Amino acid sequence: MYKENKRTRRIKRPSTWIRMNPAQALSVGFLILIGIGTLLLMLPFATKDRHHLSFIDALFEATSAVCVTGLVVVDTQTTFTVFGQVVLMVLIQVGGLGFMTFGVLIAIMLGKNIGLKGRLMIQESLNQLTIEGMVRLVKFVVAFTLIVEAIGAIILAIRWTEDFGFPKALYYGAFHSVSAFNNAGFDLMGNFSSVTGYIGDFTVIMTLSSLLIIGGIGYIVLLDIKINKSLRKLSLHTKLVLLMTLILNILGTIFIFILEFNNPATIGDLGMKEKLLGSYFHGVVPRTAGFNSLNTGELTLGSQLITMLLMFIGGGSGGTAGGIKVTTFALILLAVWALIKEDEEVNLMGRRIPKELIFRAFTITVYSMGLIALVVFLLSLTENAPLNMLLFEVISAFGTVGMSLGLTPDLSPLGKLLIALMMFAGRVGPLTLAFALARKREKANYKYAEEKIMIG
Amino acid sequence: MYKENKRTRRIKRPSTWIRMNPAQALSVGFLILIGIGTLLLMLPFATKDRHHLSFIDALFEATSAVCVTGLVVVDTQTTFTVFGQVVLMVLIQVGGLGFMTFGVLIAIMLGKNIGLKGRLMIQESLNQLTIEGMVRLVKFVVAFTLIVEAIGAIILAIRWTEDFGFPKALYYGAFHSVSAFNNAGFDLMGNFSSVTGYIGDFTVIMTLSSLLIIGGIGYIVLLDIKINKSLRKLSLHTKLVLLMTLILNILGTIFIFILEFNNPATIGDLGMKEKLLGSYFHGVVPRTAGFNSLNTGELTLGSQLITMLLMFIGGGSGGTAGGIKVTTFALILLAVWALIKEDEEVNLMGRRIPKELIFRAFTITVYSMGLIALVVFLLSLTENAPLNMLLFEVISAFGTVGMSLGLTPDLSPLGKLLIALMMFAGRVGPLTLAFALARKREKANYKYAEEKIMIG
Ligand SMILES: [K+]
Ligand SMILES: [K+]
Repeated sequence: MYKENKRTRRIKRPSTWIRMNPAQALSVGFLILIGIGTLLLMLPFATKDRHHLSFIDALFEATSAVCVTGLVVVDTQTTFTVFGQVVLMVLIQVGGLGFMTFGVLIAIMLGKNIGLKGRLMIQESLNQLTIEGMVRLVKFVVAFTLIVEAIGAIILAIRWTEDFGFPKALYYGAFHSVSAFNNAGFDLMGNFSSVTGYIGDFTVIMTLSSLLIIGGIGYIVLLDIKINKSLRKLSLHTKLVLLMTLILNILGTIFIFILEFNNPATIGDLGMKEKLLGSYFHGVVPRTAGFNSLNTGELTLGSQLITMLLMFIGGGSGGTAGGIKVTTFALILLAVWALIKEDEEVNLMGRRIPKELIFRAFTITVYSMGLIALVVFLLSLTENAPLNMLLFEVISAFGTVGMSLGLTPDLSPLGKLLIALMMFAGRVGPLTLAFALARKREKANYKYAEEKIMIG
Repeated sequence: MYKENKRTRRIKRPSTWIRMNPAQALSVGFLILIGIGTLLLMLPFATKDRHHLSFIDALFEATSAVCVTGLVVVDTQTTFTVFGQVVLMVLIQVGGLGFMTFGVLIAIMLGKNIGLKGRLMIQESLNQLTIEGMVRLVKFVVAFTLIVEAIGAIILAIRWTEDFGFPKALYYGAFHSVSAFNNAGFDLMGNFSSVTGYIGDFTVIMTLSSLLIIGGIGYIVLLDIKINKSLRKLSLHTKLVLLMTLILNILGTIFIFILEFNNPATIGDLGMKEKLLGSYFHGVVPRTAGFNSLNTGELTLGSQLITMLLMFIGGGSGGTAGGIKVTTFALILLAVWALIKEDEEVNLMGRRIPKELIFRAFTITVYSMGLIALVVFLLSLTENAPLNMLLFEVISAFGTVGMSLGLTPDLSPLGKLLIALMMFAGRVGPLTLAFALARKREKANYKYAEEKIMIG
């Protein structure tokens, strides 16, 4: 519980020429970080055998790391030196933490009534945000992140000592724990193999999946659980995120298990334990970790489409996950259900969902789909690849997932730029959009007369 | 101008067990019509050489005709006798007229203020609809349809006399005029060739495209023009539909021209006149006529995607066109623009667009995309075809367009059923949905307390 501090300082309003809303500040911060990362990755000793990365490749890798996406144009283990790998790890950590802390701040600002009211010193609008409150929040986010990552790193290090020896196992444990918790999906297994070598390894699969689920669920939920402890007192937001995460993970696992059961290129020839663990991991990673224990490029078209849907939905708000978010998806399903039942109101667990929120959910979904369609169209002009590969890659970038049917390393320079832009848009875009939609204020100027038109 | 009749009879409310809203009545009427059509097309003398159609093929063809889609599992000219062809023509005409008249009635009911107010005897709700008003409206629709179709048939008959001789030219003129005005896309050119033989024929291309544009623009617009005559007095709806139709046709033409300029399988090897006419026709038909003068299966992926977008958008409300409608698409673009400008209100031509309408536009778009995604997923399980072919076919069915990359004749029986269902859903679905969304009333029962959640 946070202690009250009577004499809280207000944050000074910045002068006009640099006045940015938090979402804009986040965007600029990310751009600067990507720029620094690009320069560092282009240093001669960042890559092995003095193979310099081209500017576009370095930009792509830095963007992918900062936006915790995990799409890669070169294999991380075989291309980068330990220095280069540590640069990537730091970019992932700073990008993930930056996004999470900003995400939580924005979430609290937007959600005047998301169940945390009165329990946090942090007040409803930026003007009322106290530096003390912000510092405490950031401290909590950083401490929680580092503790969970440390636990993950230790478990992985112990498991991997038999494979790699202790020092390397510790390094690999740290790298993959950071990569998993931040939903970045970068790996050091070599030759774009991700964790396919551990498809039936209970310890590795469960550790990674736990890290990515906790990281992807969002700090709003973690804070709420920390503060309220009992299930009964949790906010509607938290209950919905937990429920949707559970449902989507179970459905994802079942669909992949059924659709890939007889596919010898994925789990068809494996034993039941590997089949189950492989399906579970593939059902969980699209939201939005980007590791793969199956050979993604060999999935049936049905599994590819299920994966695309899960990637599009993503995880919880204010965490390391991307996508339109599980809550947005849930609201759309609830609105369908209300329409079928001819209900005027959308209700959930004894609470009414405000109309503007439903509207915002539909808006975010349409804009996201429109953006994806636009980038797919542009890639159809610059690349020579079938539609499923283009769409998969674009949704993966939008959701900052990092799964790939294998197209990314073969992209043209223009294609790399488009996917890099999409990763950036996918990372800051929906949040900025949600912020813009939520802050739109009724302007006091005159209104035109209303007139209807026919649609549909 | 309609004369007032003081003693107008009210339509009796039907008794409870058959109480249907107009959209439901339309659905049931279509189902009966499809059933009759299926039976007629299965008659031995409906097909040449006594090749009976299988039930699923007859059902598919009847659905395609009634829903004025034009996707075909067998070639119309080489499979059907003149009897079978006339059955298809009648199904197209009845389906088209039925949809148009119901569409106009529903449009008027929904649009209490779409600029026709006070000018039509037809009042705002079903309870107030007079039989006289309905009869007059239906008469206008039928008369206008038949006159325009007759003009189209005569022009085509004159043009085709040199190719086929007069009697056949008259029959072909009538069939293709009906098919074009109703945006059905059925043709009698043989071997699935559609009008590819006339790609550079100014008369044929311009006659067909004029017919399909007029038919697809919607009777709301035609009525408005008939009543108001001067451009200045037209309703916002009419102005928007005309403007969007113009813009989309021009953009469609330009995109196809550029994207196919060097494609030898389509217009690459043709002269400039054929290039222009071919691009123009392909830019216009996806909304939603379904003829093709280019070899659709050979389009570049970029052109396929542009075509899919145009098919998804469709034409005007209350006409023979399908899709989400140009007005829905325009509202979404306007809402994006308002968001960018940080405007609270969505304004257009000095009028404010009601919030519910924007909401409805987003809802219709998301539901339509969701439906398309679902059917594509199901087809990925039943068919063995690449994603672009599946998506193209499903959007074509949803928009009742009838263009195809060649998949439909090779569909499995389950695939045919899915596409047939999609044609039906695409025809009555968006209208029913718009109706359901518009009629939802604030219920007087208790409300739950409001609670927000975080999305995006
Ligand atoms: K990721
Ligand atoms: K059609």
